[in-house]
Amino acid sequence: MKKGIGYYQIGETVELALLIKQAKKGIASNGKPFLSLMMTDKTGDIEAKMWGVKPEDESVYRTGTVIYVQGDVQDYRGMRQLRLKSVRPAHDKRAEDYMQSAPMSVDAMLEKVNEYLFAMDNPKIQRLTRHLLKKHQEAFLTSPAAVKNHHEYSSGLIYHVVSMLELGRSFAELYPSLNKDLLYGGIILHDLAKVNELTGPLGTQYTLEGKLLGHISMMHVEIETAAAELQIEGEEILLLKHMILSHHGKGEWGSPKPPMTREAEMLHMIDNIDARMAMMDRALERTAPGEFSERIFAMEQRTFYNPNL
Amino acid sequence: MKKGIGYYQIGETVELALLIKQAKKGIASNGKPFLSLMMTDKTGDIEAKMWGVKPEDESVYRTGTVIYVQGDVQDYRGMRQLRLKSVRPAHDKRAEDYMQSAPMSVDAMLEKVNEYLFAMDNPKIQRLTRHLLKKHQEAFLTSPAAVKNHHEYSSGLIYHVVSMLELGRSFAELYPSLNKDLLYGGIILHDLAKVNELTGPLGTQYTLEGKLLGHISMMHVEIETAAAELQIEGEEILLLKHMILSHHGKGEWGSPKPPMTREAEMLHMIDNIDARMAMMDRALERTAPGEFSERIFAMEQRTFYNPNL
Amino acid sequence: MKKGIGYYQIGETVELALLIKQAKKGIASNGKPFLSLMMTDKTGDIEAKMWGVKPEDESVYRTGTVIYVQGDVQDYRGMRQLRLKSVRPAHDKRAEDYMQSAPMSVDAMLEKVNEYLFAMDNPKIQRLTRHLLKKHQEAFLTSPAAVKNHHEYSSGLIYHVVSMLELGRSFAELYPSLNKDLLYGGIILHDLAKVNELTGPLGTQYTLEGKLLGHISMMHVEIETAAAELQIEGEEILLLKHMILSHHGKGEWGSPKPPMTREAEMLHMIDNIDARMAMMDRALERTAPGEFSERIFAMEQRTFYNPNL
Amino acid sequence: MKKGIGYYQIGETVELALLIKQAKKGIASNGKPFLSLMMTDKTGDIEAKMWGVKPEDESVYRTGTVIYVQGDVQDYRGMRQLRLKSVRPAHDKRAEDYMQSAPMSVDAMLEKVNEYLFAMDNPKIQRLTRHLLKKHQEAFLTSPAAVKNHHEYSSGLIYHVVSMLELGRSFAELYPSLNKDLLYGGIILHDLAKVNELTGPLGTQYTLEGKLLGHISMMHVEIETAAAELQIEGEEILLLKHMILSHHGKGEWGSPKPPMTREAEMLHMIDNIDARMAMMDRALERTAPGEFSERIFAMEQRTFYNPNL
Amino acid sequence: MKKGIGYYQIGETVELALLIKQAKKGIASNGKPFLSLMMTDKTGDIEAKMWGVKPEDESVYRTGTVIYVQGDVQDYRGMRQLRLKSVRPAHDKRAEDYMQSAPMSVDAMLEKVNEYLFAMDNPKIQRLTRHLLKKHQEAFLTSPAAVKNHHEYSSGLIYHVVSMLELGRSFAELYPSLNKDLLYGGIILHDLAKVNELTGPLGTQYTLEGKLLGHISMMHVEIETAAAELQIEGEEILLLKHMILSHHGKGEWGSPKPPMTREAEMLHMIDNIDARMAMMDRALERTAPGEFSERIFAMEQRTFYNPNL
Amino acid sequence: MKKGIGYYQIGETVELALLIKQAKKGIASNGKPFLSLMMTDKTGDIEAKMWGVKPEDESVYRTGTVIYVQGDVQDYRGMRQLRLKSVRPAHDKRAEDYMQSAPMSVDAMLEKVNEYLFAMDNPKIQRLTRHLLKKHQEAFLTSPAAVKNHHEYSSGLIYHVVSMLELGRSFAELYPSLNKDLLYGGIILHDLAKVNELTGPLGTQYTLEGKLLGHISMMHVEIETAAAELQIEGEEILLLKHMILSHHGKGEWGSPKPPMTREAEMLHMIDNIDARMAMMDRALERTAPGEFSERIFAMEQRTFYNPNL
Repeated sequence: MKKGIGYYQIGETVELALLIKQAKKGIASNGKPFLSLMMTDKTGDIEAKMWGVKPEDESVYRTGTVIYVQGDVQDYRGMRQLRLKSVRPAHDKRAEDYMQSAPMSVDAMLEKVNEYLFAMDNPKIQRLTRHLLKKHQEAFLTSPAAVKNHHEYSSGLIYHVVSMLELGRSFAELYPSLNKDLLYGGIILHDLAKVNELTGPLGTQYTLEGKLLGHISMMHVEIETAAAELQIEGEEILLLKHMILSHHGKGEWGSPKPPMTREAEMLHMIDNIDARMAMMDRALERTAPGEFSERIFAMEQRTFYNPNL
Repeated sequence: MKKGIGYYQIGETVELALLIKQAKKGIASNGKPFLSLMMTDKTGDIEAKMWGVKPEDESVYRTGTVIYVQGDVQDYRGMRQLRLKSVRPAHDKRAEDYMQSAPMSVDAMLEKVNEYLFAMDNPKIQRLTRHLLKKHQEAFLTSPAAVKNHHEYSSGLIYHVVSMLELGRSFAELYPSLNKDLLYGGIILHDLAKVNELTGPLGTQYTLEGKLLGHISMMHVEIETAAAELQIEGEEILLLKHMILSHHGKGEWGSPKPPMTREAEMLHMIDNIDARMAMMDRALERTAPGEFSERIFAMEQRTFYNPNL
Repeated sequence: MKKGIGYYQIGETVELALLIKQAKKGIASNGKPFLSLMMTDKTGDIEAKMWGVKPEDESVYRTGTVIYVQGDVQDYRGMRQLRLKSVRPAHDKRAEDYMQSAPMSVDAMLEKVNEYLFAMDNPKIQRLTRHLLKKHQEAFLTSPAAVKNHHEYSSGLIYHVVSMLELGRSFAELYPSLNKDLLYGGIILHDLAKVNELTGPLGTQYTLEGKLLGHISMMHVEIETAAAELQIEGEEILLLKHMILSHHGKGEWGSPKPPMTREAEMLHMIDNIDARMAMMDRALERTAPGEFSERIFAMEQRTFYNPNL
Repeated sequence: MKKGIGYYQIGETVELALLIKQAKKGIASNGKPFLSLMMTDKTGDIEAKMWGVKPEDESVYRTGTVIYVQGDVQDYRGMRQLRLKSVRPAHDKRAEDYMQSAPMSVDAMLEKVNEYLFAMDNPKIQRLTRHLLKKHQEAFLTSPAAVKNHHEYSSGLIYHVVSMLELGRSFAELYPSLNKDLLYGGIILHDLAKVNELTGPLGTQYTLEGKLLGHISMMHVEIETAAAELQIEGEEILLLKHMILSHHGKGEWGSPKPPMTREAEMLHMIDNIDARMAMMDRALERTAPGEFSERIFAMEQRTFYNPNL
Repeated sequence: MKKGIGYYQIGETVELALLIKQAKKGIASNGKPFLSLMMTDKTGDIEAKMWGVKPEDESVYRTGTVIYVQGDVQDYRGMRQLRLKSVRPAHDKRAEDYMQSAPMSVDAMLEKVNEYLFAMDNPKIQRLTRHLLKKHQEAFLTSPAAVKNHHEYSSGLIYHVVSMLELGRSFAELYPSLNKDLLYGGIILHDLAKVNELTGPLGTQYTLEGKLLGHISMMHVEIETAAAELQIEGEEILLLKHMILSHHGKGEWGSPKPPMTREAEMLHMIDNIDARMAMMDRALERTAPGEFSERIFAMEQRTFYNPNL
Repeated sequence: MKKGIGYYQIGETVELALLIKQAKKGIASNGKPFLSLMMTDKTGDIEAKMWGVKPEDESVYRTGTVIYVQGDVQDYRGMRQLRLKSVRPAHDKRAEDYMQSAPMSVDAMLEKVNEYLFAMDNPKIQRLTRHLLKKHQEAFLTSPAAVKNHHEYSSGLIYHVVSMLELGRSFAELYPSLNKDLLYGGIILHDLAKVNELTGPLGTQYTLEGKLLGHISMMHVEIETAAAELQIEGEEILLLKHMILSHHGKGEWGSPKPPMTREAEMLHMIDNIDARMAMMDRALERTAPGEFSERIFAMEQRTFYNPNL
């Protein structure tokens, strides 16, 4: 069996089936159109330029298509790039088999989430959380958590939630003043509206609603609607709503209110930690020991060092 | 008939009935308790310290009580202050008759709002706006628009809305690309949730919901609920929601999304203009020609000059 | 009669006379020189690259020249671009006939300005404003209001002033505390020194004086000189000077003093509103319903949505 | 046995021995000197003013003295304050018995730290950390972690370190890419130079060295000196130094370098979390359910809500 | 002969004539008026409260009056304060003899300025500078350079200019690319309009013109007017104007243009250095060796250390 | 003798030996590799692209190689660029003879530094400074002061120090409160650790230590180590350490402490002045009179005007 694209070094020759994750048209400086293809399999990404494309090529080599490619891996400004020699559609392959996804199975992750749901003592928080999870379960299982930066792959959202729940349990154990039910409920729900803010796991984009309202405000409405439907009343609902609204931490980062409860503050911190670990891991995976990674845009443009230890 | 408190100069003797707008307890540097009373009638405010208070005084001289006062107007750090000689409850007086309020009658303002509602051509925007207005009409007619800074008096909210509607019409006439229905709808609804964010016209405070969620997110939920109830669908609802969410202009100022339509941007500008004019007028009313006003906190701490023209 | 360049779609063939608004030389990645031409007629702009240019071409295809062009409209990074097939100078055409300009006639705009001048009650403000207007009238009628962003076309400055005067009247009617004469005077004069800060309506650039001093400080001097010449004294002059100095609102935006009078604050707001409407209209004109515009640099890089209503 | 000062309510009469934590002289508005005494026992703090003090009183009622006090608890601007009736030195009491301290015994905490030291696999990190810990052990066991804000009590520093180590273990288990030895070493050492930056657990102040250099730069030097003494070389030392230098996260917060390794970033996050939980717990302990706490200066002046759950 | 007020220590008894530099009325917490007097002689300042003042006292103890005082020096929040025992007007004393002023004689300073004027080679810069200096010479010799912060005493402006000229010469010698004539001209003129921005050396305040226009814009106009009067033309005038406009360095600090020539940049740096040295010297004069000064507001609220060397 | 590369104009033909200062590989838009060569001799820099390079070319045309080139000077986006016609290695030439370096001889600069060292009165400061200078003398004589922006050439560091010492003397003469020994010591040592932060005068890069620790923290350690070795104690050492730590002025600029002594503040100012003059001189050397320079990144992206005087 062939090794995946993630393991090819500069200078090696590639002969593989790959999924087009994103296809973009451009015009070269000589005035001729080309396609810029970001291609992927489960092991990594590589970019290629397809020169001298004809109008019909554009409809063939589109986002979501699997193709057979031959070419050489080259260095382009410190990034690997594929110089294409031949390329043709792979009609016998399914996109799902080439999409990157979370490093746990969807079933295992769902079971984890359910464990935490089960561990809740407060029936109002539990019922509301279970109701919303069920309502969006299908999309929740495959949705990415973002368009870029971190957890932007298939099932990235639920993977992010599972990691955060594990952290949440450690926090709740160390700091007894934290209400674990609010914390778990907030973690499970905080990004759930991303299933409607984003278009799905492939060629992920913002929806119109996502752009004009955002997942924070959309989730706020979801909780209100669910509580009304389930006829749940009480401060729990208000506290959960506040956690959703404040989980980006401050106005500049998209939250209409800053965290004003212990659980809201910790939800924001946990979200931040898991996102940052994911971004650093991603960048450092591609960095040799003793070298610095490329700059991480969402971490103040910092570059990270991969030690020789 | 006696002149109102707003017209008394330093050195004059006061003998009037006044409403306690805000009563706060303090401890003097000699260790004895005192009450700090902000008193008002329709013509203005004045502060007084009530020294050597007894425990029972605290329950008598409370926010919302009308009292008879005698005393002298003095200068205290450039502000008028009342030195009390005698004070007693005025059981025969009603608080309403002493509260500051908008310079138009409530009926006239409501009529104005209805005119603009009537002028709308888009039936969805019109129905939704009318429905929400009706739902909250009673509180809308008396609610202040804020705890402090501007329009913080009885019926301040509807007065702010009426001024904004007038400005909105001028804008819509000058710039034909603006959709007047969205603009009017956005103006009428933008601050409507303040009726639940604040406690009412006297001793105004934030509610718990107001503090943890804020009127922007609360109104967003209101629109969703109303649209569902009236079974109205279509981009109009999304656009109105966006206008509500973005009307503070940017994240730092409490909006989870910045304005992304012409009408949303203009709603924000109009809101800003009316608030700034109100704050400048307030400050300059108390400033003699040729002098500078006190600093206006919400306008970058600037001081304003009252010309001799 | 042929349709203008603004109406050509991607894929269409163009055969038109167009004005070179800006010609810039570059070196292609193959080391050969090319010209980047921004071309215009009254209906819109389009860019083209002219490859393999000879030294003599540079002196022929210059800013301000009208040329006959043949070519195809292509998509280049989401913008239309013209792929040139043939090009030659159009010696029989006049640049004026191809320059974009304000949507009102110069005569109509001048009449409008004079109406407002006539409506002034304060003789000092009126005389000073009329004097300065007369002094710069010729350039004022054709000057753009900016190098880029908004009102950057022929007669853009006077068009901006006329729109602002209309807004100013609405403000003065709604807020009686505003001094309409100061407001109108400030509006007419605020950007008048742009006639010396910029080089004129074609290939607009900053003058040396414009770069080192700026129109704000230049206009301040103009008022001083005019008042001395007309022997006008009084607080009006000081207030007008202050309005000029403060009309950008704060230091970061180029004003050495922030607004400290009602009229100065409102001049700043009105200037802002008219600029923002112009930028949004420009961006949304080129955006299909249901789509987002390109980012507007001077509006915090925001993108705007063109509704389907 | 008497209850501690932390349990007295407004209106109650106090008759207790208390430690003067901080004594400050002031001049009353009548021109007479007074002492402002912050007094403490293990259950809480209370402030009192001592009026009409004589010169000799200043040398008696000093920071670090235990005194017998009689008085009434009053409300002063929302804080409890003690109105003194009588006061005299308690020569038979020891300051140590009245100082607030960490909620674990020093022995238990030291054992915890040693467990983590023992769990390290890398001998260089282990030796260096043990060496520095031993060198400063005595002061480390009693030092506060700060002058104010959080962990500013006796043994606050080691308590902060122990909490961070527990969090660190959870992180290292969840994120296998983290090097646990670096993380534990960084946590143990990060604030160790506070033993020289601050003057000790009572009347805590900055030393001259602390003010001019700061614990970050001081610790950097300590590591260099220790490594030279122990003749330890290798990237571990450089990585630990980097963690120390970067643990405040960015320049504005006192770090000459931002975190550029996974462990440095996580050290900063863990430090932040533990500090924030401590500040929120402190503020909410004094806040009744259903109320908002006082503003926490070091958390962007936010106020926190204590739920009714 | 008696020692000056600057040399009195806490605990000493004062019996001196002092000038009232600033008198302000206040109301004590017992409701009675008092005067807060900032008093000075050539050796330093001291503040005192005058309790129980009568209406007639206010007109006697005013800014600019010399008084005989008896009292004790006390410590008030770390500052010396005078506790008054007796006070009466000193009709036989002149205010000038008690005002703080520059540490050089006015004649010596004027001679220095003239030396630099004489050293200029460019006749245009020389004539213009001499003309403006002559026009404002009388006020220039006594004007303070500021209301507070630095050089805020009699002849502070010319002293600031002389120090800057000395620095300027060092710069011009070290960096031959600097045009010394522009630099000297810019230094002499940069703050000259302060003679009209401020009211003079005693009880210094901003004039109306000063507040609404500021010395930067006022000086810009002065140069224009002078150049027109002297019929001087040429780039020199433009460059001097630019230096004036940009000498605060950036918009936030009041300059409508940032420095865009070498000489403008260096003028800004020299201004900054001299101001900072003056502020540090002032603060450290009052600070014992081994102690930190009070915070300097205009230097980012920093406190400075006075070494034991 | 041929003129140097710095004197060639656009359009001229070049036939010279030049040193490759920096060689970078790239991929052209046609997919083929090229080399981007920054070449230099003592008179200036010029860039060239070398198209169609073969793998073996990369090892020949490397940073540090002297080559013979033939080609034409062209304009590329306002910068000179060399269009290569022929190129071959110049094995008979030495890199040193082509490197740009300070405009003074190394011997003369070292003598200057020694003069200032000799002028010190405080034996502790003198011994410590001399010791550290001696320890790093060899590298100090050739090290650049930076990777880019200013003094980034051979011996740039010592040249920067010498200029700063001259300025320092002027300051010390004008402001007698400055301690000249601390000032000179701080100037000589402030950037000395750059000899270990950077890799040397050719193809200058940051070392790993330089990136993770930075020259400020590295120098702090050096002083500690030297003082221990020389057994020097006293406040002088602390004050020098503080000057090193604070010489970038504030946290955002890399200093863990802001300046808190007169000498520390002045060291920061002098460093700033010399850097700014060097950047302006560099930019304006390449700018014709009457023109504006290219933007200087490290000076807030400003552009500077070269006057016609």
